[in-house]
Formats: sequence, C-alpha cells, structure tokens
Amino acid sequence: MEIIFLWPGKTKNRYLRFLQEDYLAKIKLLSRVNLVETAAAKGLDEKHPELIMEKEARGLEKYLKDGYIICLSDKGKELTSEELARLIEQQAAISSRNLIFLVGGFLGLAPRLMAKADFKLSLSRMTFSHELARVVLLEQVYRALSLIKGYSYPK
Amino acid sequence: MEIIFLWPGKTKNRYLRFLQEDYLAKIKLLSRVNLVETAAAKGLDEKHPELIMEKEARGLEKYLKDGYIICLSDKGKELTSEELARLIEQQAAISSRNLIFLVGGFLGLAPRLMAKADFKLSLSRMTFSHELARVVLLEQVYRALSLIKGYSYPK
Repeated sequence: MEIIFLWPGKTKNRYLRFLQEDYLAKIKLLSRVNLVETAAAKGLDEKHPELIMEKEARGLEKYLKDGYIICLSDKGKELTSEELARLIEQQAAISSRNLIFLVGGFLGLAPRLMAKADFKLSLSRMTFSHELARVVLLEQVYRALSLIKGYSYPK
Repeated sequence: MEIIFLWPGKTKNRYLRFLQEDYLAKIKLLSRVNLVETAAAKGLDEKHPELIMEKEARGLEKYLKDGYIICLSDKGKELTSEELARLIEQQAAISSRNLIFLVGGFLGLAPRLMAKADFKLSLSRMTFSHELARVVLLEQVYRALSLIKGYSYPK
C-alpha cells in the first residue's frame, strides 16, 4: 500500500511548504508515500467557483483510479488520532490498493470528486485555510503511522 | 481588551516559529495582542511530569491575574471558527479584561492552572503536537478577528 497525498496547486506559503516537506520526509521513513500536486486552475474568475473546481477536478481524477479515497471535508467525520491510525492500519491489512488523501484547493473539491470518497474526514469543527489543513493532515498521518509502529511521538 | 497568548517555552520548530510570528503580525493589525513565552522547565526527569508542569505553572500564573482565561484542552469544547469569533466578540463587549489563551507545554498544563480556565477549548478530536496547536490557535484567532471585522479571509 502506498499513501498518496493529492491536491491541486503547490502550497504557496513557504513556511507551510517547508513543514509539508518535513512531515513528508518523516512519513517516508515509515511508509511508501507520494505527494501529487496537480495544476491549480489559473486565470478564472472566482465568481464562477464551479468552473475552477471542475478544471481542477480534471487534473485530480487521473490519480483516483485505484485506491481507497479519503477526502477532507468540513462535512466529514471527525476522528481521533488513534481512530485515524486504525483506519490506515485496516486498509493496509485488507488491500494493497493505494490510500489516497484528497484535499481540495481554496474553493474546495468538485462535488463529483467528493462523491468518490470512501471516507470523508473532518480535521476539526473549525475552518482551517486549505494550506494549513494540508500540514495538519500530514502531521496526523505521521502521528498515525508512528502509533501503528508503536513509536513514541513527541507531543 | 488585549489578547494574550501564553505558554511555556519558545516554539522550537523554526517553521512553526515563523508561522507563529506571521500570524501574530497579522493579528496585530486587528487587535491589541501580546505573546508571552515563559520559561520551559529544563533538566527535570520526564518520569515526573507533575514536577515539570508545576515548575512551568509558577512561571505562567503571574500572567493570569486579571483576564478571561481560555485554556487549550483535549477535554475542552470544540467550537466552529464562527463560534470562536462570537466568544471573542462577547468578551470584548462585556469587559475590558484581557483575553488570555493559555497553552500547555509538551506535557500539558498543571491541573491547578487548568482549573482557572473560564473556558476550555479543544481545537480538534485529533491530538496535535503542542507547537502545531499554537499555530492552529493563532490562525483561528486571526480568522475570528477577520470575521468580527467583516473582512474576507483567504481560505
């Protein structure tokens, strides 16, 4: 099983980008992992969010062919870190399919991609910026893998 | 009303530290704000967490004299970003006392400090590292102040 993080557009905030790379390197020590940043929709009017989400969806869907898809969604289910660890562990046990964490851009995910989710995950009742959400997700997946391996993780 | 962020020990991860300073500068444009990083307990055996928490509590409590105290706690109440904004707005309306956000160190807060909380806030069902929790809190307070002022905030 490979863990794939998938989202449109490179993380722009450079400190969040450094953190992203840092957590990704740590995850790499514990699992096969890949980060796929597809093209962000550019030059489209924000008054038409559905056009932006659709354009980004076309880039993202190529990577959704075979995998268990976890979408970040504010309407998703909140898990504890232990529950997320159990979910990852179960998927690794029952299938060799990829585990895909799909995160939308600043407007979110096109509904037709959200409909493909095997699991919708909410990180918090609070709204995080989409770039901060990426980093929180990476930290949680690193924490989950550490829990699975029985490593202690700095609080 | 001044918003005070209070915790023991400087944030060590330098990217989280940069983010912390960045959000703090943004908050400063919207409110009176102060960050107080008291001394972290050093050289004590982690086998005695109560000694570490007590030592840190002595540094923190000096700053808790007059204010509405919001402690971060995994046993606290989760709020949406809008609910946090309303809480801050209400406090500013009814009192000129400081609004103190108190965050523990890597072992958490001494129970006697937690008992002083006017409100216990949980950021997520998930466990964040204490340094990441600081940054998430800062982002949320910035978001809350932006909501109160009626500014749009990048998602």
